[in-house]
Amino acid sequence: MPITARRRVTRIAENSREICFDSLVAEEPLEIRVGGRSLAVTMRTPGNDFELATGFLLSEGLITGAADVATISYCPGPDTQAFNVLDVALSPGVRPPPAEAMRAFVTTSSCGLCGKASIDSVRSKSVYDVRSDPMRLPAPVLCALPGRLREAQKIFDRTGGLHAAGLFDADGHLVCLREDVGRHNAFDKVIGWAGMDGRLPLRSHVILASGRASFELVQKALMAGVPMLAAVSAPSNLAAELAEEAGMTLVGFLRGDTMNVYAGAERVV
Amino acid sequence: MPITARRRVTRIAENSREICFDSLVAEEPLEIRVGGRSLAVTMRTPGNDFELATGFLLSEGLITGAADVATISYCPGPDTQAFNVLDVALSPGVRPPPAEAMRAFVTTSSCGLCGKASIDSVRSKSVYDVRSDPMRLPAPVLCALPGRLREAQKIFDRTGGLHAAGLFDADGHLVCLREDVGRHNAFDKVIGWAGMDGRLPLRSHVILASGRASFELVQKALMAGVPMLAAVSAPSNLAAELAEEAGMTLVGFLRGDTMNVYAGAERVV
Repeated sequence: MPITARRRVTRIAENSREICFDSLVAEEPLEIRVGGRSLAVTMRTPGNDFELATGFLLSEGLITGAADVATISYCPGPDTQAFNVLDVALSPGVRPPPAEAMRAFVTTSSCGLCGKASIDSVRSKSVYDVRSDPMRLPAPVLCALPGRLREAQKIFDRTGGLHAAGLFDADGHLVCLREDVGRHNAFDKVIGWAGMDGRLPLRSHVILASGRASFELVQKALMAGVPMLAAVSAPSNLAAELAEEAGMTLVGFLRGDTMNVYAGAERVV
Repeated sequence: MPITARRRVTRIAENSREICFDSLVAEEPLEIRVGGRSLAVTMRTPGNDFELATGFLLSEGLITGAADVATISYCPGPDTQAFNVLDVALSPGVRPPPAEAMRAFVTTSSCGLCGKASIDSVRSKSVYDVRSDPMRLPAPVLCALPGRLREAQKIFDRTGGLHAAGLFDADGHLVCLREDVGRHNAFDKVIGWAGMDGRLPLRSHVILASGRASFELVQKALMAGVPMLAAVSAPSNLAAELAEEAGMTLVGFLRGDTMNVYAGAERVV
């Protein structure tokens, strides 16, 4: 479970002011290296770092399964914080990320110059076809998921500062929950876990985001073969376009017993 | 105001299922070039792009004021989407970003290998001293800000998918509001606006974030000389550490008439 830190805080209410202690979620940079070369740095909540690195490589299309990874290890050293740099050694025969990739992980892991180019680029990288996934999910099962995610998110009660990603099977059972200060990291951790556990593609699963659904989250779900992404808040337009294009079901505003389905509504029965 | 797109949506409630239309917030990549060289790509909500680019350069310490920028222009071309690539021409004599910076904008604009290194790096880049800022703000004035932000955020009612950053003066008057799918972009737009309007440093101002307060947001506020950052949700531990170290006031969970102050509590009276 993610690391928290206790800090002194001044709590101010209408007629009171008191000093107390509060648990804050930890946020630290993680540098991901591949074969000793720096690929990306992400601000993340420490914990499940190997899953995060694996999931990041999977969802960016730089590896196609955990078998492409030989080892992952932290890189301690005089000038590096022991647990904030890790190196991924690829298996023999696996092509290292191209030089472009080494500079492509800019402010976000976007991949094109317009929404259309971004969608094209994802389409060309995706190895799984989610369109043919026959999963059908009754609306009441779907509506129960946010409650289950929150129940499982005990850490949330302590810090209130974490995004969560929950992977559920077609019966609505929680299979994997990961949290992070960054929602893309929470997704990468879930996908990396599934990859390391030999579960890809994630056919007939739903991945639930505690917040909004961005283009990036749809992309990550797609790269892991998840046929349905549900979010508690709104999707962006580009997220809906990519889901539609890929044959993925995209649900937004999943609250109480209502939801909006932005693509692939046939899977919600 | 940000662009939205209308999409067909299937709205499912307990006993109903209807097709309707919904406004979704637009999300498109923006590539920021400096002197023709690619510096960063960010997924953003189109609109206020020049402010976004200026604010990004300011908050990363690559320029120190809008005077460092000669012109900003979109780069249309056969292989680029007209409004998704822009080029910043620096003023004569201004040093272009170093080669390291050109590859430093990885998954997030993190800057070190541990929290401490990140804080050191920000400290060395910051040109303004917020510690000496004498601003004092009565708690009731602070408590009124989230309501004012939401009121001004008319777009929110339509899409529910946007982060907001609001800049307020010491009397609690809203000076600038910007929205984006990415909260770091919303901050950059506000800071870029202030820079282009000749208002830096933003002494005796408060910047309000509609969500959580990350390390990155504290960093951006600091680079613009803002002495107080308030957030509706939780801060991360590293955000609180940086604020404390810099002498900035950091308020979290600003809701109703209560708040938690994580650093610089003397400014809330």
